Amino acid sequence: MTLWFVGTGVGGAGSLTAEARGAIAGADTVYVERFTSPFGERLYGEVAGAARGRVVAAGRAAVEDGGEILRSAGGGGDVALVSYGDPYVATTHAELRARAARAGIPTRTAHAASAPAAAVGECGLHHYKVGRTATVVADPAAAPATYRAVHENLSRGCHTVLLLEYDREGGFFLGPGEALGLLAGAEADQRLGVFDGPLFVVVASRVGSGDQAIAAGDAAGMAGRDFGPPPHAVIVPGSLHFTEAEALRALADCSCEPADNSARVGRAAARMIARYVPAVGRAIDRVAPLCGGDGSADAEVLENARAYARDAENFLSEGRDEVAILAVGYADGLVDALRIAKGLEPE
Amino acid sequence: MTLWFVGTGVGGAGSLTAEARGAIAGADTVYVERFTSPFGERLYGEVAGAARGRVVAAGRAAVEDGGEILRSAGGGGDVALVSYGDPYVATTHAELRARAARAGIPTRTAHAASAPAAAVGECGLHHYKVGRTATVVADPAAAPATYRAVHENLSRGCHTVLLLEYDREGGFFLGPGEALGLLAGAEADQRLGVFDGPLFVVVASRVGSGDQAIAAGDAAGMAGRDFGPPPHAVIVPGSLHFTEAEALRALADCSCEPADNSARVGRAAARMIARYVPAVGRAIDRVAPLCGGDGSADAEVLENARAYARDAENFLSEGRDEVAILAVGYADGLVDALRIAKGLEPE
Repeated sequence: MTLWFVGTGVGGAGSLTAEARGAIAGADTVYVERFTSPFGERLYGEVAGAARGRVVAAGRAAVEDGGEILRSAGGGGDVALVSYGDPYVATTHAELRARAARAGIPTRTAHAASAPAAAVGECGLHHYKVGRTATVVADPAAAPATYRAVHENLSRGCHTVLLLEYDREGGFFLGPGEALGLLAGAEADQRLGVFDGPLFVVVASRVGSGDQAIAAGDAAGMAGRDFGPPPHAVIVPGSLHFTEAEALRALADCSCEPADNSARVGRAAARMIARYVPAVGRAIDRVAPLCGGDGSADAEVLENARAYARDAENFLSEGRDEVAILAVGYADGLVDALRIAKGLEPE
Repeated sequence: MTLWFVGTGVGGAGSLTAEARGAIAGADTVYVERFTSPFGERLYGEVAGAARGRVVAAGRAAVEDGGEILRSAGGGGDVALVSYGDPYVATTHAELRARAARAGIPTRTAHAASAPAAAVGECGLHHYKVGRTATVVADPAAAPATYRAVHENLSRGCHTVLLLEYDREGGFFLGPGEALGLLAGAEADQRLGVFDGPLFVVVASRVGSGDQAIAAGDAAGMAGRDFGPPPHAVIVPGSLHFTEAEALRALADCSCEPADNSARVGRAAARMIARYVPAVGRAIDRVAPLCGGDGSADAEVLENARAYARDAENFLSEGRDEVAILAVGYADGLVDALRIAKGLEPE
């Protein structure tokens, strides 16, 4: 009695490991989850051919419910749940495994390459710079959260892998152009600048298959292109090491030069300090002639404002972004109170 | 003439894919990079046994330099570079591939499970909540940057996978306890609160092998434990979905209840707003009795301070952290300028 979670990897039939084949061959029942992933006919044939027990197609609902799979494994026989890529990229599978463990059913895993990790590798981007992965779904109400995930990654210089909705049961997959359009649509509401200018993106299509294609270019230009059949992943690179830019030039069909999106979006703190420190300086210059001299309360406020504006720049250079923003906000408040006291209008 | 990048996966000999075996068998020269990774004797025997061409041990320097490998592939024969896990988790391999592509050498990849991804799956944590991966090395000078990576992930609710220095050539590997000690040592300097109280961590040892072990508990308690032979990965979970907490209880040897580290560390903005908005309110209460009445400049400054403090809380609830900090800093500056003008000491 063992429940195996078996990943197929992303390279078709050739990407099955010996361990995966063994688990499939040894199972009394093999559940194949191919409805939320690009699980092709040849790969299915390979899995079904390796199986000696019963092969059952498991839809999304069957895996989410999990009751039949757990009963089947709990009944004494070995069971394998086979899914595309790495089994645990799907939260459903991770949860099912924990349920099995709690029910006293031993579990084992045949790990395999996941689609998001393989896409990063195929683009020549550095693995350790990949931030949180996000999913783009057709419902526009979900776009702001995904947009913010991209922005958060960009503001840290990190790359974002965007997985696109893929529903084989419903016969629906979201194309890269539509996905980019949904995210661009969130700009108007979120206004964090991700689409405020050209955004360099990579579209990785059919990663691991014989007709894999990696294209890169400006999001606006990419939105209108035909990338062929799914699956697709969209990667929004953050800061680019020169070896990453070189890799993209060598490995991707680039319609423009690789560009550093993080430099443009930047850290919010860097943008704020760049804007407010000079503004505080100008405000000090305007109000100083109206203020009392050395030793006065006015002079103390002005000196504090100058000191905190300097501190803000220092904190920023130390990477202490939040304290930097707090400091420049404080400096701005100090000098603005003086401006109001002296009856000056805002700049 | 093809240069194959072949990953072995993390499950030992059984984790080789059919594609990987084919690439190894078809190569005139097979370079095996087993010096920065836990590439065991059995796995090495399996690779060497599958090879029909020359098998060459490639040290770190040989792969970083890459000259011999590129010359070998450029000379006309097929070449395979075999490494543990997924080939592109190592930046060196991603860069070598781009160099090959620029030199006109066709490259192909046998993707495989990577150690960090497999560790996340084995712990039952959700893949899409994993932030940037970081490495802990023995040099304490590198600890602050890693500490900050953990903090950044925690502040977004994300999990951090920490890979530990592993140098087979030098006979050195960093243990989980030492790694946690190095990070805790960075607290004194960085003061972002990661180790300011119990930190719930997971140590995943020998993931994919027969004697895999997943242990979880408070970092201070874990630092003194013996986790057996390497490789080890340390995971610092961020916010925990209840299914993740349940999975950890079921899958890991937990010496304490799974705890939500993000709730404690929190967003810097949330901590600042929680501290400064009440402080601004108290400052307003102290200075207001000394101020002029309705229509005076003092009253205008106080009203602005109240409004910006309210705005700060609203911005925070909308997730606009930076603007929230700026607003509360500004409110604090406004009221502090009044305090100085009225000759009040700081609170």
